[in-house]
Amino acid sequence: MSFDVLQEKIIARKNPTVAGLDARIEYVPEHIRQESFFAHGESRRGAAEAVWQFNKGLIDALCDIVPAVKPQAAYYENLGWEGMALLEHTIQYARKKGMYVIADIKRGDIGTTAAAYSEGWLGKTKIGGTSCAAFDADCVTINGYMGFDAVRPFLETCKAEDKALFALVKTSNPSSGDLQDRTLDGRTVYETMGALVEQWGAGTEGKYGYTRCGAVVGATYPEELEKLRAQLPHTFFLVPGYGAQGGTAQDVRRAFHEKGHGAIVNSSRGIMCAWQKTGKNGLDFQEAARAAAIAMRDDIGAYVAFEE
Amino acid sequence: MSFDVLQEKIIARKNPTVAGLDARIEYVPEHIRQESFFAHGESRRGAAEAVWQFNKGLIDALCDIVPAVKPQAAYYENLGWEGMALLEHTIQYARKKGMYVIADIKRGDIGTTAAAYSEGWLGKTKIGGTSCAAFDADCVTINGYMGFDAVRPFLETCKAEDKALFALVKTSNPSSGDLQDRTLDGRTVYETMGALVEQWGAGTEGKYGYTRCGAVVGATYPEELEKLRAQLPHTFFLVPGYGAQGGTAQDVRRAFHEKGHGAIVNSSRGIMCAWQKTGKNGLDFQEAARAAAIAMRDDIGAYVAFEE
Repeated sequence: MSFDVLQEKIIARKNPTVAGLDARIEYVPEHIRQESFFAHGESRRGAAEAVWQFNKGLIDALCDIVPAVKPQAAYYENLGWEGMALLEHTIQYARKKGMYVIADIKRGDIGTTAAAYSEGWLGKTKIGGTSCAAFDADCVTINGYMGFDAVRPFLETCKAEDKALFALVKTSNPSSGDLQDRTLDGRTVYETMGALVEQWGAGTEGKYGYTRCGAVVGATYPEELEKLRAQLPHTFFLVPGYGAQGGTAQDVRRAFHEKGHGAIVNSSRGIMCAWQKTGKNGLDFQEAARAAAIAMRDDIGAYVAFEE
Repeated sequence: MSFDVLQEKIIARKNPTVAGLDARIEYVPEHIRQESFFAHGESRRGAAEAVWQFNKGLIDALCDIVPAVKPQAAYYENLGWEGMALLEHTIQYARKKGMYVIADIKRGDIGTTAAAYSEGWLGKTKIGGTSCAAFDADCVTINGYMGFDAVRPFLETCKAEDKALFALVKTSNPSSGDLQDRTLDGRTVYETMGALVEQWGAGTEGKYGYTRCGAVVGATYPEELEKLRAQLPHTFFLVPGYGAQGGTAQDVRRAFHEKGHGAIVNSSRGIMCAWQKTGKNGLDFQEAARAAAIAMRDDIGAYVAFEE
């Protein structure tokens, strides 16, 4: 779904945040892990089943207060095909519960390959005379290093299926400057990438003024975030780096436009692993995640308006 | 396995090429497709089973003359988890047949996420007290836009498991210049990325002098290829763009060092879809692929030495 749908879900819940579902098996509470290992062994199947129970519990606990989830593909791929089946089930369960699903896949490839990725993650694959969905998320993250060839097929699927994407611009990690901060024809690589993103999306604006081609901009570089917000007026931002990585509400407020539109802030471990800080061995993982999500909502909400 | 193993396989077969396994269901000959659709329906399972028979047949036909295969993840992901199971089986079958497997995944993410990707594709995932392999390829492609944070975990797995990777530098597609050709502190983005790749790999050189951190450099930009070959003496090159995309043997010869070392050239449709040009409805898909692979070997081999 386009960013209109995401923006509406944010306004309805007065909460511009997304919960990462990046479940390493170590993040799953002991009682769930043990039950699954008992039934399926310490195997990929055992891990996938445990994470499934954990993800379902998190989605149930969060779906009325958090507008979106962001499963990170890496933590499913490292469980092989059993992990990929788990990822499909997780995406479908979250959508059924009314959440907007951003599949964090950061794919980047060209032509027919990019088309195959966009079929797999947002659209449908033609098989003989029928068309089959695979992961069927609402939105994906992509990497535009290869240029517009890598973006166009995704954008076409987005238009056909009313969906959207986020391309990497300025990422939140310590070494993001290795390439992104280099100066290029008088401006940085990340600014150049930002300008490309704004240009690639042009013509796909929805009712809030944002195109279907959003940008990933980290909370950990607040000055760069502020500069990009000013340079990219029609680009919706996905903002990682809040919480564990060091970004604060004061930092992420710079991602939003005056009316509180145009951005969503991610937290993964802060919500998912909240149970590790309550001393109850994870039996309270749902309550702990919900409390952490509410605290994050209120922390960021203090600086953001929620006008229609 | 490090690039030593790949270089040895190239020398043994006197063939510096890799066959792409990018099987869209349309590329599978009719008789295989029909049999699978009859058994499993026009479904993801039906498609995955057909591609599995096709891939096995291609690997059987190529394994004594072609040193490596490169399955492109997109064409498996668009069949959902059934496609990912097919990809696992394909990788394991090719390795069992003595081929070097480059999983073309172009992943790029940071810290623990990159670690999870490298567990999933090259290493093992810890599950309780055991460790489980998932896709277990010999080598992967990655995207270094996010900087060294995105590369380090892969390199660590490569050292532990004696494997290797290729990072995108100058890609073969028409719009690769959108970002890669921009000028940056006096040199282009792709040269800067190339220098980072050479630097990231430093200290991991094998007996042929190449590090574990190779580079993807397209055949379709031969001048850039020649320049990068000179600038990156310790970097092994994966060269896409030969054949269907327009790169010739005259172009790709520039990727090799004097002794014929340091590069491998990919062909996907040229080998996989060779049966479409013989007028035999795909019943000869193995012979056609083998003949195309031999023709490619001889075409490129005319310009490349195979010294030990």
